[in-house]
Amino acid sequence: MIAPLTPAMLFAAAPQAENVPLAMLAVFGVAKVFAEIFERLKQPGIVGEILAGVLIGPSVLGWIHPNQVLTALAELGVMFLLFRVGLEVRASELMRIGRTALLVACLGVVIPFVLGWGIMHLWREPRIESIFVGAAMVATSVGITAQVLASMGLLQHTASRIILAAAVIDDVLGLIVLAIVSSLARGSLNVAELALTTVAATAFTFVVARWGTRAMSHVVPTLKLRLHAGEVQFNLAMIVLFGLGLLAMYAGVAAIIGAFLAGLALSESLEHRVRDFAHGVSELLVPFFLAGIGLHVDLSAFSSGGTLLLSVVIFAAAVISKIAGCGLGAAGLGWADALRIGVGMAPRGEVGMVVAQIGLSLGVVSNRAYAVVVFMAVATTLIAPPLLKLSYRDVPPAGPRTEDYTLG
Amino acid sequence: MIAPLTPAMLFAAAPQAENVPLAMLAVFGVAKVFAEIFERLKQPGIVGEILAGVLIGPSVLGWIHPNQVLTALAELGVMFLLFRVGLEVRASELMRIGRTALLVACLGVVIPFVLGWGIMHLWREPRIESIFVGAAMVATSVGITAQVLASMGLLQHTASRIILAAAVIDDVLGLIVLAIVSSLARGSLNVAELALTTVAATAFTFVVARWGTRAMSHVVPTLKLRLHAGEVQFNLAMIVLFGLGLLAMYAGVAAIIGAFLAGLALSESLEHRVRDFAHGVSELLVPFFLAGIGLHVDLSAFSSGGTLLLSVVIFAAAVISKIAGCGLGAAGLGWADALRIGVGMAPRGEVGMVVAQIGLSLGVVSNRAYAVVVFMAVATTLIAPPLLKLSYRDVPPAGPRTEDYTLG
Repeated sequence: MIAPLTPAMLFAAAPQAENVPLAMLAVFGVAKVFAEIFERLKQPGIVGEILAGVLIGPSVLGWIHPNQVLTALAELGVMFLLFRVGLEVRASELMRIGRTALLVACLGVVIPFVLGWGIMHLWREPRIESIFVGAAMVATSVGITAQVLASMGLLQHTASRIILAAAVIDDVLGLIVLAIVSSLARGSLNVAELALTTVAATAFTFVVARWGTRAMSHVVPTLKLRLHAGEVQFNLAMIVLFGLGLLAMYAGVAAIIGAFLAGLALSESLEHRVRDFAHGVSELLVPFFLAGIGLHVDLSAFSSGGTLLLSVVIFAAAVISKIAGCGLGAAGLGWADALRIGVGMAPRGEVGMVVAQIGLSLGVVSNRAYAVVVFMAVATTLIAPPLLKLSYRDVPPAGPRTEDYTLG
Repeated sequence: MIAPLTPAMLFAAAPQAENVPLAMLAVFGVAKVFAEIFERLKQPGIVGEILAGVLIGPSVLGWIHPNQVLTALAELGVMFLLFRVGLEVRASELMRIGRTALLVACLGVVIPFVLGWGIMHLWREPRIESIFVGAAMVATSVGITAQVLASMGLLQHTASRIILAAAVIDDVLGLIVLAIVSSLARGSLNVAELALTTVAATAFTFVVARWGTRAMSHVVPTLKLRLHAGEVQFNLAMIVLFGLGLLAMYAGVAAIIGAFLAGLALSESLEHRVRDFAHGVSELLVPFFLAGIGLHVDLSAFSSGGTLLLSVVIFAAAVISKIAGCGLGAAGLGWADALRIGVGMAPRGEVGMVVAQIGLSLGVVSNRAYAVVVFMAVATTLIAPPLLKLSYRDVPPAGPRTEDYTLG
């Protein structure tokens, strides 16, 4: 019916934003083909999905360029991923391991920051730029680790819970670091504003984590009885998800933290079927988040050998510093769990890239330093899943695996 | 944590494309609140969701303006809606009622077209513009009717099946009408190209409807056994959905027809759980489709009394002509089913608006005629659900209702 077309011709002919099925097929389809290839090579499928983004992105095939629609789908994807993870975790259990998680998060912020800054300083890079690279190394992309742990059925393991709680705390700490660093770049540090930001972010996170579950276990059944329209539970869940995502943004933390807290709050109120609904959305959209990380890679930035070398050094420092810092914080649990936690906190993913983008937009980060941060963010994200699989290899699944999710 | 903000301030402060949770919360939340209000008034919730779009759209509150992200979500929403409907229908049953459906579709094309053209001609409107308004009255927005029938558990009723099959045929006929009308506007009718378009669209639709189910019932179980990555069935389903959506576009019909055919093809191969996954996506995204119709309403276009009067006349003609045309085609089934079919084919929704947009872009449709078509498209869409409920009031649910979907 149609003349034979190469994919490149298809993408050239159709403005992507207007051809939704084409963009969906390209990103989702290629991501899943790569996931299959990587699973056959006994590697985590998630790594394949990120590399699929690199392949179809501007650097290699040029089929897909990041655009508003794909960015929104990626953001929704990681929100639903964290929402689903939150649904599987009990808030009370997170509270119980709170002290260890706090220590893990703090050391996992300080050591990467100091090491990143130090290396850039030794490399004779400008001062503010060095501080920004350090700040980007503070970030933790909890989505990546959560996806790996969920797919292995290991979200209930103690080390996994500490990773999740520490990642939430890490986001609050990262916000504070970013606020300080941005103020330095602008040349003025407003202490009152910084204190307000800190209090707002901490209060929001703590209040929802502490009382959200109890509130929802009253609200959801009551509304289910009193509302007339169909699918009440699902609709309420979505409103809580987007509402807390939005509140989180206004409180200064990432929307995904709000999404995770929404999942936590609803973890004891939602029916099985509604969980499957949310699971379906995340199955559809998570590949857009993963491939989206790959889409932002610009390989041409590494044509200079100096940039590549610095990137590799910063990447190594990023891995080592998180393993050392977070591992040290969790040393009391024994070296095996400490290592799992350190590896689980290592991926920087989209969070690291956002910090570098802010630096770019403030005019204090050069394109070269941006490329270094993107390399670090993507490489830590690619290396974490196989290292996680390795570090958890002796642990039997403690909860349902993603595939068996609804049978549990 | 945040200063008290009015919604208008929120929307003014945050560029919408960048604040995904805000856009999601506004559209989804307001749509569901309106659905609840309408259900309490014993009206179809779907009408409330469309009116929610009018309310938050540019004409009234101005919180949300149509943008690329919302348009993409709306398009995905209606694709998933038709996919889900296709999953509940057996292709063989559609084939059996094919002759009646063909007659319904043909008369439902000819009579509205002639009546619309005739009224515009009597109103002394320009010739090409009159023809375009007639062409816009040919369209059928099957999504609206499908949603109402699914929510009432009536997709398995004979009249419902005829509506679905006739709507698919209507889309092919509408494509041919649009091709002819666009050629007239450009001043050249290429008969060979028209024949090719017709053959491509017909062949694609017929081949997939006829052999798709059999093909998929071989392919899906085989691949499920041979692939390693998780959620194989869901991933295959999504690839078939977007793949057929894309092929449909290249064959000249709407992506939603491809989505419906994908559902049909997979209706005998997918597990319960995978259906719930797809159901979840459609529950999330259908409100974006419905509210999206409302977002496009520009009430200021009706400040002139003449436009409003013409709009009301064209709207009345659009309802009467579909009921008369489609009803006549289904007269053999008795007047009750004929009426149900006529009412079910009445909503023009987004399809009618697309025809008018093409006319606008060709420079042969004035803003005034465009406003008339949008009024007709939205008003037929708003009136169809209550009329459908009324016309089906004596029919007990023959299949699972949406709410009980997974219990069936």
